[in-house]
Amino acid sequence: MSTYKAPLDDLRFALYDVLGAEALFARLGQADVNRELVDAVLDEAARFSETVLAPLNKVGDDIGCTYDKASGDVTAPPGFKQAFDQFVEGGWTGLTNAPEHGGQGMPAVVGAVLTEMVDAANLAWGNFPMLSHGAVKALETYGEDWQKKVFLEPLVAGTWTGTMCLTEPHCGTDLGLLKTRAEPVADDTYSVTGTKIFITAGEHDLVPNIVHLVLAKLPDAPPGAKGISLFVVPKFKVARDGSMGERNSVRCGAIEHKMGIHGSATCVMNFDGAEGYLVGAPHKGLQAMFVMMNSARLGVGVQGLGLSERAYQNALRYARERLQSRSLSGPKNPEKPADPIIVHPDVRRMLLSQKALIEGGRLLSLHAYSQLDIAEKSQDPAEREHADILAGFLTPISKACLTEWSIENTYNAVQCFGGHGYIAEHGIEQLARDARITTLYEGTTGIQSLDLIGRKTAASQGAGLKLFLAEVEAFAKQHEGDEALAEFIAPLRGKCSEWGKLTIDVLQRAAGNPEELGAASTDYLFYSGYVVLAYWWARSVAAANASSRPQAFKDAKRDTARFYFARLLPRTLAHKAAIESGAASLMAMPAEAFGAE
Amino acid sequence: MSTYKAPLDDLRFALYDVLGAEALFARLGQADVNRELVDAVLDEAARFSETVLAPLNKVGDDIGCTYDKASGDVTAPPGFKQAFDQFVEGGWTGLTNAPEHGGQGMPAVVGAVLTEMVDAANLAWGNFPMLSHGAVKALETYGEDWQKKVFLEPLVAGTWTGTMCLTEPHCGTDLGLLKTRAEPVADDTYSVTGTKIFITAGEHDLVPNIVHLVLAKLPDAPPGAKGISLFVVPKFKVARDGSMGERNSVRCGAIEHKMGIHGSATCVMNFDGAEGYLVGAPHKGLQAMFVMMNSARLGVGVQGLGLSERAYQNALRYARERLQSRSLSGPKNPEKPADPIIVHPDVRRMLLSQKALIEGGRLLSLHAYSQLDIAEKSQDPAEREHADILAGFLTPISKACLTEWSIENTYNAVQCFGGHGYIAEHGIEQLARDARITTLYEGTTGIQSLDLIGRKTAASQGAGLKLFLAEVEAFAKQHEGDEALAEFIAPLRGKCSEWGKLTIDVLQRAAGNPEELGAASTDYLFYSGYVVLAYWWARSVAAANASSRPQAFKDAKRDTARFYFARLLPRTLAHKAAIESGAASLMAMPAEAFGAE
Repeated sequence: MSTYKAPLDDLRFALYDVLGAEALFARLGQADVNRELVDAVLDEAARFSETVLAPLNKVGDDIGCTYDKASGDVTAPPGFKQAFDQFVEGGWTGLTNAPEHGGQGMPAVVGAVLTEMVDAANLAWGNFPMLSHGAVKALETYGEDWQKKVFLEPLVAGTWTGTMCLTEPHCGTDLGLLKTRAEPVADDTYSVTGTKIFITAGEHDLVPNIVHLVLAKLPDAPPGAKGISLFVVPKFKVARDGSMGERNSVRCGAIEHKMGIHGSATCVMNFDGAEGYLVGAPHKGLQAMFVMMNSARLGVGVQGLGLSERAYQNALRYARERLQSRSLSGPKNPEKPADPIIVHPDVRRMLLSQKALIEGGRLLSLHAYSQLDIAEKSQDPAEREHADILAGFLTPISKACLTEWSIENTYNAVQCFGGHGYIAEHGIEQLARDARITTLYEGTTGIQSLDLIGRKTAASQGAGLKLFLAEVEAFAKQHEGDEALAEFIAPLRGKCSEWGKLTIDVLQRAAGNPEELGAASTDYLFYSGYVVLAYWWARSVAAANASSRPQAFKDAKRDTARFYFARLLPRTLAHKAAIESGAASLMAMPAEAFGAE
Repeated sequence: MSTYKAPLDDLRFALYDVLGAEALFARLGQADVNRELVDAVLDEAARFSETVLAPLNKVGDDIGCTYDKASGDVTAPPGFKQAFDQFVEGGWTGLTNAPEHGGQGMPAVVGAVLTEMVDAANLAWGNFPMLSHGAVKALETYGEDWQKKVFLEPLVAGTWTGTMCLTEPHCGTDLGLLKTRAEPVADDTYSVTGTKIFITAGEHDLVPNIVHLVLAKLPDAPPGAKGISLFVVPKFKVARDGSMGERNSVRCGAIEHKMGIHGSATCVMNFDGAEGYLVGAPHKGLQAMFVMMNSARLGVGVQGLGLSERAYQNALRYARERLQSRSLSGPKNPEKPADPIIVHPDVRRMLLSQKALIEGGRLLSLHAYSQLDIAEKSQDPAEREHADILAGFLTPISKACLTEWSIENTYNAVQCFGGHGYIAEHGIEQLARDARITTLYEGTTGIQSLDLIGRKTAASQGAGLKLFLAEVEAFAKQHEGDEALAEFIAPLRGKCSEWGKLTIDVLQRAAGNPEELGAASTDYLFYSGYVVLAYWWARSVAAANASSRPQAFKDAKRDTARFYFARLLPRTLAHKAAIESGAASLMAMPAEAFGAE
């Protein structure tokens, strides 16, 4: 079985030493949030993740959720409910929610660290509390007062959970096609009818009520995406005083059999004239959906990060223990029959790739979360606006890169285990299967890439990129005379300048041919991700050197940064060439020529 | 469920138009092997794979093999035995084996095409007949006359199957560590005792007897890899007249629960004083093992190819059917609510990546097999020697690249399906899970990489590379004035020249520091694979243009080649940079600095 230990030391380094979280907390105007408190939260989150959640990871995979056709009930794997009860009792569900709804008002960066630990310990379990966040965000932003009053408190307390009901059998990305209808019944009450699929935590036995946020079309809806409205549809009807009433006519029709996250209930939800209430203005559901989605996207990136961390820890342990062959430069372990495989350069390449992508990716993600905090809580409107743009810009990069890297990291972990990685016993193949969902849900990597190059770059003349590049340049200037950083800052500056030119080049080509945006999109996203990581590795070295940590810690950060610049950053060369090759080689072939019909 | 249709048209194009198989058959001195016969074989192999094997692919995954602890028996999934009986009746098991042992003596290239179809249709099933090949090769090369007489005929006929018993719990790559012992009993009879793991088809109910080829150590064995001997140990003892006797004391102790290939029996085999017979000279088992292994390695590459082909076919069908969003350049399907996703550039990128890696990879693999044929059957000793070197050089490239690309190709197929790719219903996730074994067994990608840069390059001063580059240069010269090829030949020549320089550079650095070989190995292997594929794409365009095929076929080859050169070949830039960065960034960090113990 795979094991997990929360990487508290690197989490603290990322938060305090690199991102300067103490200054951030001060900027957010929250006097009660300080390092001492946050450290206590992290310690307790680590304990809970390691001792309660991690041991349930394998049973979740082996047994999974079960569905009873007669009742439509879904039962979570053994132990999941007990763990959820403890999570609720510990007040974890509302860690980052607003105090007026019962939350603890902690910054999003702290919530992200909790999420990393929870998802590393048990991704399938983590999906039950995760989906409530989007529901809370949507109701906070667009809900009527009575809706907030009735739904937010139990969602924040975790006594109920939420869902996001978007996808239908014939539409996922293109929600304009959706067929679920909402007929007005009285006042703001509607009758919702339709089938939703891939609904995470759509039905389960962890809590008595489930609050579905459902996209549907009103009878007078304009066609396409401009005709979508958002409704809240509880599993049990809820009176205006918050009391639970009779069962609503929404029922789970099946659960999916999936490659991984077996412990997570992925439900077909049938709404059959279910009572629902309009959230926000008619036909403005897509806007509300994006509020749910953006929060969820950064969260899925963190899922990838958590799985990567767990896979790395196990691969590293195995590489230190497994004796096989001798070092090419002579025995390193002469008293034993062979050397541990960590002596072999190619095993080190696989381990260092994981380490560099995880520790760098952690900063990419936490930085994005910190921008959410600033955008929400800073006293300075200009600062809020900048942070909002930067958060939007970093969200698709963080979601797509951290999840794609989780595929690579779990792949490398399996390779380190050799054939032992393929069998269930060691638990590594489960991590690879679980990771595989993360590049798909909440928008595939292709969709993130279009979001980055389209909405977040082309549509704003690169506003997010400009802010990011300015931040890098400020850092580079600040360390101009620092000899220890010169080897990193010079190539970083070169890449940033190249990134700007590539962007202008793509946008210019796209002005003449809109296919150019799509053709560049995924390579542009990866290119961006690798440059962003170069920044975080340079900053990590600077932060380590500036800290009072032991020399070995500083050396390890420097060595990992050197590995990153030497071995991973050059991937930008391939992505740049692909971007520059343009749309022609993708669009020339007629659809029928791809292969036999 | 995923479907499969044998790509006969492209298989024939590869064999006849590109590789000139008709001339090859003539060179092998086999008057009875001709295009008409081979075409009939391919048609029948396609029918068998599509109609008998492909429908059993899902039941093999769902039910898998079952193990009975009391008896040690293993039962293959429902239908597997019936399919195997048909396969045996059809004479397929001996397709490429020597006629003196009952085989049909067809060239290895033809066998490779059969293997591709079988493995695309049902990889788990394909493992049952596959392992016999290595056993036959080892016995043909090293077996005593009575061993050949007794074992080869039923193995070739498929009435018995074979295994390769190499791995033990504490040793896979480093076979010098193995603990299985063989004590002499009488004449060439030995008592074999030890535990072997990961034994494919080690126990099953498809045939009455199983012939294990087992690596073990004699009492007087020198330490390490130089002390390994090879033994044949049948499940039921066999008299010198070939009659089956009593049960031997070898027993399956468990089967592994794996990420994929559930229908393939992966066995723990316990040898408890089992009767065995020495194959070849004492302590020379490693040599015999490589005979088995090399045949198996090319075969595993073909497994990756087959899975890639099946995944692509299904992704392509889905991309043509699934309507989602509009083309960026305006509706392509205005009468429907959305366009098929194949209009989107990024979906095309994923499909074209698959197509280019599959069709190019097919040639890389078949070319390697054709060298095996020449090495074995050519009348010209110099030609045989060259072909042997080239086959050895191409084997790790073909094994590692085709299997790694199967990871990428099945990844891209899942991405094309979006969330639907993650659920079992569509059968795409099974292909991804099945593919995951191919980069692990018969030597991981890391081991193939060391084989390429070490044994196949450094140890021979690049003999294989020189032969390959000479072949490319001959092709380039031949087409020097061909305007249709200029866009491919110029960059191909550039890459070949760069490949040679990179190789010299690495070997020079390795002379001073042996870690440099390991540090470069995997990137060097990929670099090599992408350049080899560039050659096959250039040759594909040349062959298509020279053929009498329709213009649409020629255009499709040219468009795919253009995509390959524009979008995939630039990956060599990243690999080159990684190779040139040397060993320092991999070796600097002390093992304890990789993370907490």
